[in-house]
Amino acid sequence: MKKTFAPVPGGITAPQGFQAAGVFCDIKRLGTGKGSDKGQKRDLALIVSDAPAAVAGMFTTNQVCAAPVKLSAPRAGQSTAQAIIANSGNANACTGVRGWNDAQRMTEIVARRLALPVDNVLVCSTGRIGVPLPMDNVKKGILAAVEQLDNSAAHARQAAEAIMTSDTRLKEVAIAFELGGKPVRMAGICKGAGMIQPGMSATGERPMALPWHATMLCFITTDAAIESSALKLALGEAVAGSFNRITVDGDMSTNDSVIVLANGLAGNPPVTAAANRRADRMLFHAALNHVTLELAKMIVRDGEGVSRFITVRLSGAGSPADADAAARAVANSVLVKTSWCGGDPNWGRILCALGYSPARVAEEKVDVAYSLPGSRKLLYSVIKGQPTSTPFAALCRITTQKEFDLHVNLHQGAAGAIIYTGDLTEAYVDFNKGDVSNPAALGG
Amino acid sequence: MKKTFAPVPGGITAPQGFQAAGVFCDIKRLGTGKGSDKGQKRDLALIVSDAPAAVAGMFTTNQVCAAPVKLSAPRAGQSTAQAIIANSGNANACTGVRGWNDAQRMTEIVARRLALPVDNVLVCSTGRIGVPLPMDNVKKGILAAVEQLDNSAAHARQAAEAIMTSDTRLKEVAIAFELGGKPVRMAGICKGAGMIQPGMSATGERPMALPWHATMLCFITTDAAIESSALKLALGEAVAGSFNRITVDGDMSTNDSVIVLANGLAGNPPVTAAANRRADRMLFHAALNHVTLELAKMIVRDGEGVSRFITVRLSGAGSPADADAAARAVANSVLVKTSWCGGDPNWGRILCALGYSPARVAEEKVDVAYSLPGSRKLLYSVIKGQPTSTPFAALCRITTQKEFDLHVNLHQGAAGAIIYTGDLTEAYVDFNKGDVSNPAALGG
Repeated sequence: MKKTFAPVPGGITAPQGFQAAGVFCDIKRLGTGKGSDKGQKRDLALIVSDAPAAVAGMFTTNQVCAAPVKLSAPRAGQSTAQAIIANSGNANACTGVRGWNDAQRMTEIVARRLALPVDNVLVCSTGRIGVPLPMDNVKKGILAAVEQLDNSAAHARQAAEAIMTSDTRLKEVAIAFELGGKPVRMAGICKGAGMIQPGMSATGERPMALPWHATMLCFITTDAAIESSALKLALGEAVAGSFNRITVDGDMSTNDSVIVLANGLAGNPPVTAAANRRADRMLFHAALNHVTLELAKMIVRDGEGVSRFITVRLSGAGSPADADAAARAVANSVLVKTSWCGGDPNWGRILCALGYSPARVAEEKVDVAYSLPGSRKLLYSVIKGQPTSTPFAALCRITTQKEFDLHVNLHQGAAGAIIYTGDLTEAYVDFNKGDVSNPAALGG
Repeated sequence: MKKTFAPVPGGITAPQGFQAAGVFCDIKRLGTGKGSDKGQKRDLALIVSDAPAAVAGMFTTNQVCAAPVKLSAPRAGQSTAQAIIANSGNANACTGVRGWNDAQRMTEIVARRLALPVDNVLVCSTGRIGVPLPMDNVKKGILAAVEQLDNSAAHARQAAEAIMTSDTRLKEVAIAFELGGKPVRMAGICKGAGMIQPGMSATGERPMALPWHATMLCFITTDAAIESSALKLALGEAVAGSFNRITVDGDMSTNDSVIVLANGLAGNPPVTAAANRRADRMLFHAALNHVTLELAKMIVRDGEGVSRFITVRLSGAGSPADADAAARAVANSVLVKTSWCGGDPNWGRILCALGYSPARVAEEKVDVAYSLPGSRKLLYSVIKGQPTSTPFAALCRITTQKEFDLHVNLHQGAAGAIIYTGDLTEAYVDFNKGDVSNPAALGG
């Protein structure tokens, strides 16, 4: 279903019955033993539903995953949840038993202060790996966040700020639509920047056989009524078409998490996974697909050092796995990404990457074209494996734009895949190379 | 067999009965329609044996491979060959029927001038993809090279220069040893720099299920007598332990080729693949392993933008495929490589990369350590998935060196793998990003 959704003001608290807060509790400073270089950037977010909400979650399939992922994934498998506590500045990954206890403790403090069952509280973390959380600060932060909880747009925005790490822009979306005759709202916040090639699932089973990597966190709220099983199906479809289709640097994080809470306060007849009321379910799917794709694209556009946003549109693959593998080979090739940095329509590197991908590729069948986003006018640089007579300058007029689409047709079959990615720039290297004389400034 | 081999002066013509030449014939200028930015850098190399030589070759397993690879791979499968013609500045890849005809033509011109059977001449190319060869210039170059052929060290060196592209240093090795009671010599030249993660085979069957990438060319000469079948086995082993163990940027080229010619003029009893005379065969293997590994390491050290040389020593994997996959995941992680650029011993990114690799990994079992090359003193940063108390400054004293070893033990089984790699620097991005206002300067 192709449908456009009107944005509404406000962030994660735009749907009825959600409150949020974002506070500063100095997680990074005590985590590294050095002064924070971010001043008073908020580092702890709390999101709470007034009523028990249907819950669904998708988490990293990295075998080395953080304590909060291990704790939250089974809780997201339950029917309901009511609160999410999330911190930036520390990933609580590779922190052993202490990390597990700290994650559990974070949910216990929230549960006690809000009088909720502890397993209705989920926890997420993002930041440097291998450093224990400064729990005294975290506890103070949680108490302050509980005090500040309300449904204002300002506090929603502060929650969105609190999950940012190397993000340069706050990422939030809110939409309104009618579902089952009732006005409903859906909103989401997320963070990304580096270590971004999510491969999330609800079960720990990897969706594709490829490596990937980043920390992205995303929290979605809606006042729509939907059964938990239907919500889980909807989130699986939405993530497969959004967050699991992006790559910044090809590295899959230990902490990627997407959580959605649906509290039903809009009063619509509950969306179910059953065959009846199919129209409502399709509409809910479309809304969730819209919110997740908008947020996923924001992550790529704000990826570390990214100067160009490229949509790789792979078609004609022999199988869906081949389509995915071929598109990711191109999107993650260091040589292709650096050519994009200079605006160079270097199709040789693209054919080379296709050729070493695990996908079945025959050079003499491959077409490569460029277009401006949304335009149907394709400029072909390669047809049947051979360069066309399209002038180099004409190709450059597209590839030197901030955003463009790359079209590859393998002419092997009917399968396709889309990957959203960026270029690889000196700024990315500079940001991530680490200055060992200043350990506090080292990246995650 | 661990044996050290004494270097001898001279390059590819150090063994008896080999002649070489390297000339400038302006392949790049006419290839792109713009002036060459390299001045008079030689771009055509010719290597000839005085007598028919046993031949073996290994070539890229990229499905998109260059015309010279398609032509030379079957010729390297024969028993004998006698000459290699190679150009830089143009890969003759993705050039269709014209490219195939051009590659064939190059070998025909050499064969006619030297009165050799055409299928005893092999051809290799490296440079930009998708540009037709300027055959008038190439023909003039071949004629000039034939005129200049001799066995001098100066001409051997000019041949080594002629295959360089973005290499900053000439790469040649020559050794002498005694085989079957006779003094024999073996020598090699190679080029590398970018698009470097070779995955070569003699049959087109990919040695491992992973993607990789670069153009590397390597030519080896020896006056040892060895049967063709034994030579092919020896080269397979040598490449598996050298060129197929390196990665600069994780991109596998369309043109990677290694060719060895053994003309038997040393007069030793021929090495065979049969069970008798095993000691000679082992010694020949050791010599070829030595020459290929020396050259392979030169390629990494001179990789585009590389400022540090890292040997990833992976042990304790559950299977050889797991060992290879885990080592490559670390060596190709953009985040790990950028942390090395700054000399940062960031073990979190290493564990993250291990976790998203296809290898079986359990965080609580992984050990990570650093050492100086050749030293047995390991400094552990992680034991059983947990950071050790080793001071950060002590780790940095190793990881800020120009060369160091990274040791990872997965404690899952007995399989191991070594990968030789470099860091990822701003200089790499700058070199490869391409300046579209100067198409002649665009990289391969």
